[in-house]
Amino acid sequence: MKTILNPGKAEWIKSLKRPVQKTKDIEKIVKPILRKVKRSGDKALKKFALEYDHVQIKNLLVTSEEVMKSKDLIDPQLKKAILVAKGNIEKFHAAQVSPELKMEVMEGVTCMRRSVPIQKVGLYIPGGTAPLFSTVLMLGIPANLAGCEEIVLCTPPDSEGNIHPAILFTADLIGIDKIVKSGGAQAVAAMTFGTESVPKVDKIFGPGNQYVTAAKQLAVKNGVAIDMPAGPSEVLVYADETAIPSFVAADLLSQAEHGVDSQVVLVTTTEKFASKVKKELESQLEKLPRKDIAKRALDNSVTVVMANQEKAIELINDYAPEHLIICVENEDEVVGQIINAGSVFIGNFTPESAGDYASGTNHTLPTYGYARNYSGVSLDSFYKKITYQKITEKGIQNLGPTIETMAANELLDAHKYAVSVRLKYLKDKK
Amino acid sequence: MKTILNPGKAEWIKSLKRPVQKTKDIEKIVKPILRKVKRSGDKALKKFALEYDHVQIKNLLVTSEEVMKSKDLIDPQLKKAILVAKGNIEKFHAAQVSPELKMEVMEGVTCMRRSVPIQKVGLYIPGGTAPLFSTVLMLGIPANLAGCEEIVLCTPPDSEGNIHPAILFTADLIGIDKIVKSGGAQAVAAMTFGTESVPKVDKIFGPGNQYVTAAKQLAVKNGVAIDMPAGPSEVLVYADETAIPSFVAADLLSQAEHGVDSQVVLVTTTEKFASKVKKELESQLEKLPRKDIAKRALDNSVTVVMANQEKAIELINDYAPEHLIICVENEDEVVGQIINAGSVFIGNFTPESAGDYASGTNHTLPTYGYARNYSGVSLDSFYKKITYQKITEKGIQNLGPTIETMAANELLDAHKYAVSVRLKYLKDKK
Repeated sequence: MKTILNPGKAEWIKSLKRPVQKTKDIEKIVKPILRKVKRSGDKALKKFALEYDHVQIKNLLVTSEEVMKSKDLIDPQLKKAILVAKGNIEKFHAAQVSPELKMEVMEGVTCMRRSVPIQKVGLYIPGGTAPLFSTVLMLGIPANLAGCEEIVLCTPPDSEGNIHPAILFTADLIGIDKIVKSGGAQAVAAMTFGTESVPKVDKIFGPGNQYVTAAKQLAVKNGVAIDMPAGPSEVLVYADETAIPSFVAADLLSQAEHGVDSQVVLVTTTEKFASKVKKELESQLEKLPRKDIAKRALDNSVTVVMANQEKAIELINDYAPEHLIICVENEDEVVGQIINAGSVFIGNFTPESAGDYASGTNHTLPTYGYARNYSGVSLDSFYKKITYQKITEKGIQNLGPTIETMAANELLDAHKYAVSVRLKYLKDKK
Repeated sequence: MKTILNPGKAEWIKSLKRPVQKTKDIEKIVKPILRKVKRSGDKALKKFALEYDHVQIKNLLVTSEEVMKSKDLIDPQLKKAILVAKGNIEKFHAAQVSPELKMEVMEGVTCMRRSVPIQKVGLYIPGGTAPLFSTVLMLGIPANLAGCEEIVLCTPPDSEGNIHPAILFTADLIGIDKIVKSGGAQAVAAMTFGTESVPKVDKIFGPGNQYVTAAKQLAVKNGVAIDMPAGPSEVLVYADETAIPSFVAADLLSQAEHGVDSQVVLVTTTEKFASKVKKELESQLEKLPRKDIAKRALDNSVTVVMANQEKAIELINDYAPEHLIICVENEDEVVGQIINAGSVFIGNFTPESAGDYASGTNHTLPTYGYARNYSGVSLDSFYKKITYQKITEKGIQNLGPTIETMAANELLDAHKYAVSVRLKYLKDKK
């Protein structure tokens, strides 16, 4: 982790530049996968499972027997933990409901807005070495709370053709019963076009490798919405002398272990604190099972010592971190000045992993600087908000002339006439 | 307008298919424009103004003198109308504020969510024959209510190098003081990359022709967010015998006059009503100044006579219209069953043009079937929602073991350790 002292804006922008994402080459690989799934449906999914997951899949859909069996395969302690996390996530997301809005803006003119669930949503859960049941909670709970009519979950099978029991248990807990043994770009393609086993969905959620990300971007061109653009995960810790160096080091490492391309940034205002954290990092790193990954991620990472808090906050807002940990004396003041961040972790006893799993906030957050213009996944991500208006006879008499004048000035005579014909009708009726 | 009687689902899907949007050829034209603006800034904008708008621009930014002068050039009746519309739009959008959410999900674990304005937003207002000051209201009012720090408005100049006074008057009324004389893909490029006169923005809003739309899509690849994907405007009117045929015809024509590619659909349950509307359409069409455009749009349009209301609603939700007018006896019942639409107009005295201008709802709405998975522009479109969590010593003791168990099961040991180090610290402290 290299250290930069009191950089100017141009220098910090350069030092904190995220790696360029090369999408073109990946699109070249992903496009034919989409085409094949569109054309051959389930058959293509099975072919790709053989090719990429090295497994012959008979039934793409997980059976209820498989789900039942999963319950016996889970450690009771893990079951309990998942239930606690579910409780917190449900509470915080249920509180995000927007009530129906209805107001008479002027006599006879009533406007309304209602949240209506997106009908069909697809959740993508990556495979790999670890079963990401936490992402099942983070996407499945709000989808379920919103009342989406159809929720389909795609995740790659292991080499035996099975889905990890923790994923099945969690999905079942939330009430997701359509689980497809398919991963990668082909799973995204299946949810985009529909196959015999997989319904075509309206919106696709979830993290994934660069192939999944590229497939999601291509899905958008086919009329499907996605949660947000994706990039490698990242954390920025802003800490002063009131922070505990071993905690800060642990938080930095918990991001670094995600992958070699993880972004880890420490911002502080004294060199002394920076060197304390560095020492802690070195000793903690040695004990980590994933220390090779973490070490490589740290090699690309930066400690920035800023001249003062004002400059530090400017840097933070400019970087727009996905995860922002704030461990400083005047934390409330600093929190109030943060305008670009995905999720914020406040104080010495709030590690990022709390939000990753169980505090109640969503862990699907904007990376790669997108915190400047995107929100993380929330209950709203599973709704459309439809507006309504109803105008009475009195209302069109009140508002009609305004509309006529505006339409005439925009040279849209038919727009004007749609009002005039009604006003004339009411006049003639008298 | 052709009529289809009682179609099955396959048939209505075919008849209501929207024209395919060819983006590839347009991207080829737009990409070099983006590149040139990125490289040469203001100089490129001026060059493109000469090339496409046939005007030599000295100052890209509108001066305060030009704004002052615009006030004298506007008809008082139009001023009054704009003020009335502004009042309604402000009222309905101000009511959309999401209050800060703060809750203790379990003892010592507090989650929060706040709406934070997107810092810099760009509003694109198309040029052409008519000055779209209504779009200035629809985008500028929520941007202003949200408290975006910088609002820049781009719109093409006329052949004299001027911006229409109604646009300047409206922008000034809302408090937008950065108005750039630039249109087309080059304006979108300027807001994407920034130039000497135009700030780089975080999100771009606004309608436009296919070049603007393509440029917005390319802006997304450069880290900028956009309001929504765009396609030609459309209306679906669902009417029964309680509707007044001359009103229905006027509403269909007000959409048809937008452009030859406008989509206009009438759904009803009796042939008799359909033919009444047809007759009205023919007679109203003759009186329209833009009748050539409207006639061609109608040629591509469809009246569908459905067997019953249930089928009619199924078709509507399947088509997902941008604008939906509902003029039937049991309107409330039908409105409650609509799950895919941009904005809904209820009853005989609620023409679409009310929402286009002045009822209070936003007229920037999802077209092209995107009402299945996108909302129209609202106050929320100008915010990010940031989540926060703060955990106390007691809180991490309560929740810590849950996080440790989950992290261990996802094989993320550093995530676990970030909790363990804190729990150990608290234990040792005792």
